[in-house]
Amino acid sequence: MRLVILSLLFTSTLAWFYGRDDPDRWSVGGVWPLPQKIIYGSKNRTLTYDKIGIDLGDKKDCDVLLAMADNYMNKWLFPYPVEMKTGGTEDFIITVTVKEECPGGPPVHGASEEYLLRVSVSEAVINAQTVWGALRAMETLSHLVFYDQKSQEYQIRTAEIFDKPRFPVRGIMIDSSRHFLSLNVIKRQLEIMSMNKLNVLHWHLVDSESFPYTSQKFPELHGVGAYSPRHVYSREDIAEVIAFARLRGIRVIPEFDLPGHTSSWKGRKGFLTECFDEKGEETFLPNLVDPMNDANFDFLAEFLEEVTETFPDQFLHLGGDEVSDYIVECWVRNKKIRKFMEEKGFGNDTVLLENYFFEKLFAIVEKLKLKRKPIFWQEVFDNNIPDPNSIIHIWKGNTHEEIYEQVKNITSKNFPVIVSACWYLNYIKYGADWRDEIRGTAPSNSRYYYCDPTSFNGTDTQKNLVLGGIAAIWGELVDNTNIEARLWPRASAAAERLWSPAEKTQRAEDAWPRMHELRCRLVSRGYRIQPNNNPDYCPFEFDEPPAIKSEL
Amino acid sequence: MRLVILSLLFTSTLAWFYGRDDPDRWSVGGVWPLPQKIIYGSKNRTLTYDKIGIDLGDKKDCDVLLAMADNYMNKWLFPYPVEMKTGGTEDFIITVTVKEECPGGPPVHGASEEYLLRVSVSEAVINAQTVWGALRAMETLSHLVFYDQKSQEYQIRTAEIFDKPRFPVRGIMIDSSRHFLSLNVIKRQLEIMSMNKLNVLHWHLVDSESFPYTSQKFPELHGVGAYSPRHVYSREDIAEVIAFARLRGIRVIPEFDLPGHTSSWKGRKGFLTECFDEKGEETFLPNLVDPMNDANFDFLAEFLEEVTETFPDQFLHLGGDEVSDYIVECWVRNKKIRKFMEEKGFGNDTVLLENYFFEKLFAIVEKLKLKRKPIFWQEVFDNNIPDPNSIIHIWKGNTHEEIYEQVKNITSKNFPVIVSACWYLNYIKYGADWRDEIRGTAPSNSRYYYCDPTSFNGTDTQKNLVLGGIAAIWGELVDNTNIEARLWPRASAAAERLWSPAEKTQRAEDAWPRMHELRCRLVSRGYRIQPNNNPDYCPFEFDEPPAIKSEL
Repeated sequence: MRLVILSLLFTSTLAWFYGRDDPDRWSVGGVWPLPQKIIYGSKNRTLTYDKIGIDLGDKKDCDVLLAMADNYMNKWLFPYPVEMKTGGTEDFIITVTVKEECPGGPPVHGASEEYLLRVSVSEAVINAQTVWGALRAMETLSHLVFYDQKSQEYQIRTAEIFDKPRFPVRGIMIDSSRHFLSLNVIKRQLEIMSMNKLNVLHWHLVDSESFPYTSQKFPELHGVGAYSPRHVYSREDIAEVIAFARLRGIRVIPEFDLPGHTSSWKGRKGFLTECFDEKGEETFLPNLVDPMNDANFDFLAEFLEEVTETFPDQFLHLGGDEVSDYIVECWVRNKKIRKFMEEKGFGNDTVLLENYFFEKLFAIVEKLKLKRKPIFWQEVFDNNIPDPNSIIHIWKGNTHEEIYEQVKNITSKNFPVIVSACWYLNYIKYGADWRDEIRGTAPSNSRYYYCDPTSFNGTDTQKNLVLGGIAAIWGELVDNTNIEARLWPRASAAAERLWSPAEKTQRAEDAWPRMHELRCRLVSRGYRIQPNNNPDYCPFEFDEPPAIKSEL
Repeated sequence: MRLVILSLLFTSTLAWFYGRDDPDRWSVGGVWPLPQKIIYGSKNRTLTYDKIGIDLGDKKDCDVLLAMADNYMNKWLFPYPVEMKTGGTEDFIITVTVKEECPGGPPVHGASEEYLLRVSVSEAVINAQTVWGALRAMETLSHLVFYDQKSQEYQIRTAEIFDKPRFPVRGIMIDSSRHFLSLNVIKRQLEIMSMNKLNVLHWHLVDSESFPYTSQKFPELHGVGAYSPRHVYSREDIAEVIAFARLRGIRVIPEFDLPGHTSSWKGRKGFLTECFDEKGEETFLPNLVDPMNDANFDFLAEFLEEVTETFPDQFLHLGGDEVSDYIVECWVRNKKIRKFMEEKGFGNDTVLLENYFFEKLFAIVEKLKLKRKPIFWQEVFDNNIPDPNSIIHIWKGNTHEEIYEQVKNITSKNFPVIVSACWYLNYIKYGADWRDEIRGTAPSNSRYYYCDPTSFNGTDTQKNLVLGGIAAIWGELVDNTNIEARLWPRASAAAERLWSPAEKTQRAEDAWPRMHELRCRLVSRGYRIQPNNNPDYCPFEFDEPPAIKSEL
């Protein structure tokens, strides 16, 4: 097969109003996120439903690959509401070869997602080290498929692709405490994540507002702390999310935020300190763990033991953010705490009390039967003395430069980092915020397609400590009704930044036709991917069914 | 029945974090928008499905009332996913008495929506002048119904209510040109509108970007101007929208924006002037009507004749905005236009040419067989000489005060006005923008619950010229995927301002518990009403089904 490099095809290149993109500017068979290397062939191949097949080789019994085959062959490869043609002369077989054994659990940190994909006019060949690589390859293959309006046929572009992710951690953080998120909604986000080659669901399970996580050992936590008995994730629900995520190559990292943001743990007696307003009255809701009470650490040890039995991931997020927001009300103004601090020789220094709490927490993590690597929000680095085993999670910073400076600083102290500060997608603004600078009261994280977490002056060792990024959609103003359209395709911008080579993804205007095609492809797969650039359309639009009553 | 005035019941009144409302602060049987007069009784009545009935009196054959009975009895009165109890001792009959005949068409401008509603423990009585008043009463009745978690029963609060709208025009403007909106999506918005007692759908059908309206006489318009042959509203589609809106007490006012924003009319040869960039090259897309060509006015006369046959509403929106944005490129730099202006004695004054166009357009409107009252965007008042018969539509202004000043100015010249400037809901911001001042690059129309279009120093005659308001959701970044959650409950803030007495709706913090209950009620009816205040929850949440392929 003779291969030639083709630039992406656009259906039109006319100028348009207000400097906007032409509404029908999209790529044809463009891949999102952009692969490390892609060489398109000069020919396309017509695909018909009855002539296409998939061969899983010696991995015919692997559940990950079987689910993949089912999803793509029956739903995602041919998403459009058109009559599916049959016939044609030759079969088109997708041969999938995976080196490693079918894994029993979810992807482990750093697992290979590398793949080779070759699509010719007669066949497609996928070669991967792991099933996760095969999943990524299959998604790429599906991006090469397009519907040709003229011939009214599905076609696939021929191509040779070598691909692997730039960062091992590429995630979405959801917050199920501020607003409850249903299993259906979480699963839909997992599917869209896999279509963007994201591999981490950071599940911020509980926070001040509500405690939807159900502990078997401590049912009083959700019993008192959930919004209602309906607003909980049963143990089966959680297992279902983990299994669903695994089949799509996604790890689930749970977060239990400590010692602040803990008001909803109120079902556990004695766990929280009393908090006081300026007049010394208890009108401020308790929101900080009581570090005086040793029973609290015994409880945490048992609770986290159960958490590790529930969540198989090697990482465990233990929060640590915004403790200072509650210190005055809940520690400084609390007489018992002040007395305890004197006894311990901490004087007035609440940071020493914080460190006391974290040291006890680190000791618990050290002793967990199932070993876990702890992740902490950046304050544990900024204000306290983190356990050297920790990963630091950056969420602060109003400009890309401020964020890069922090990455530089933290990696210089030899801590691995995960960056979320670039991608606080809950902060909405009017306009194409993934691409354009848009000011507002909320931290100015627009233009986030351009945020590149290794853009700092540092050693290779430092840059290797950047594990990746997690786009966060905090739940203050987000629930089942709006999370999906608000996340996508905005999180796709982060997905490309975290997967693709930086040097090939420097211009959002070059990325847009592929993002437009991605949006339309996923819209046709049934997902609520909103417009994110300017007036445009999809060949086949999303539709909303007539209203039906809720079942939740 | 002894009536006592009860303040709304809240399930909790504890302080909460960050000065936020308690997540479970909501009214019980609160009505949105707030009625003119409401006196709650001291008792509630349990409702069971088999004992409730509706009696339409002598209007048993009226399609509007039959659709109402079907919608409320079978869907909206009992929306929650709970087992519906039967039994109880006594029937509960809703008796509906309407004075005027069942109308064959949609509501006319100024039609009565007044009603009396009395709910006792034994029955409900609705008295209204028109079927539209009965529709409003029925929605109010449905707001008195709540689900009692303790007894696990539906109950209705007893009350005596007198109600009527403050303004005759209370609407939503949708834009089906920048992004196509499906029939299902438009119908869903109409249903939610009726649940907010809104009565006008302002349908901005076509704009520069695309022409989805299908003309029978001039099929070349959508043939060339639509995004694709799938992105059109057939004549049947339009009739369906009008009929669907009518059954919910909503008028449909179409807009055909002239003479700017017309690029998508390109299917009509000779309709647009050629436009030129600074170098004199034709790279700027034509976007302004050619006023030199008399055939264009003959065409417009025929086209608008068909429009009046398609849309029964007495009002006809003819745009007129932002002409000046294209004047340099399309008129000043166009040699033929300059010559025409010289011949007409206009010199260099393009405003005279604009007036020439508008005078010809006014003459066409005057001669329409089916008489229509024209609405124009404010520029026709600001820059030109509007027909004295026109309604002026205000869309500019960055602050409430600027907007009030314009209302004052325009009504002082005796023109009726409709205000949209307060409610440009396409401009999104992070936070509770309906209530809080939120700055941003986009015009600062946050805190829009407080925008009251008669808040200016003026005569009663002037204030009576304020017909009402239309919340606009322009389509640049809005389509089927996100319009519903983006509109609601933000547009509900406008709905209350336009319906309820100003003196009783002065504080958003008092309104919130009712808005919260409204959100949860409509969420359970199956609509995508987003959180709009802070962390909260609904007793029964919205859920998203697993993804299914699009059919559009």
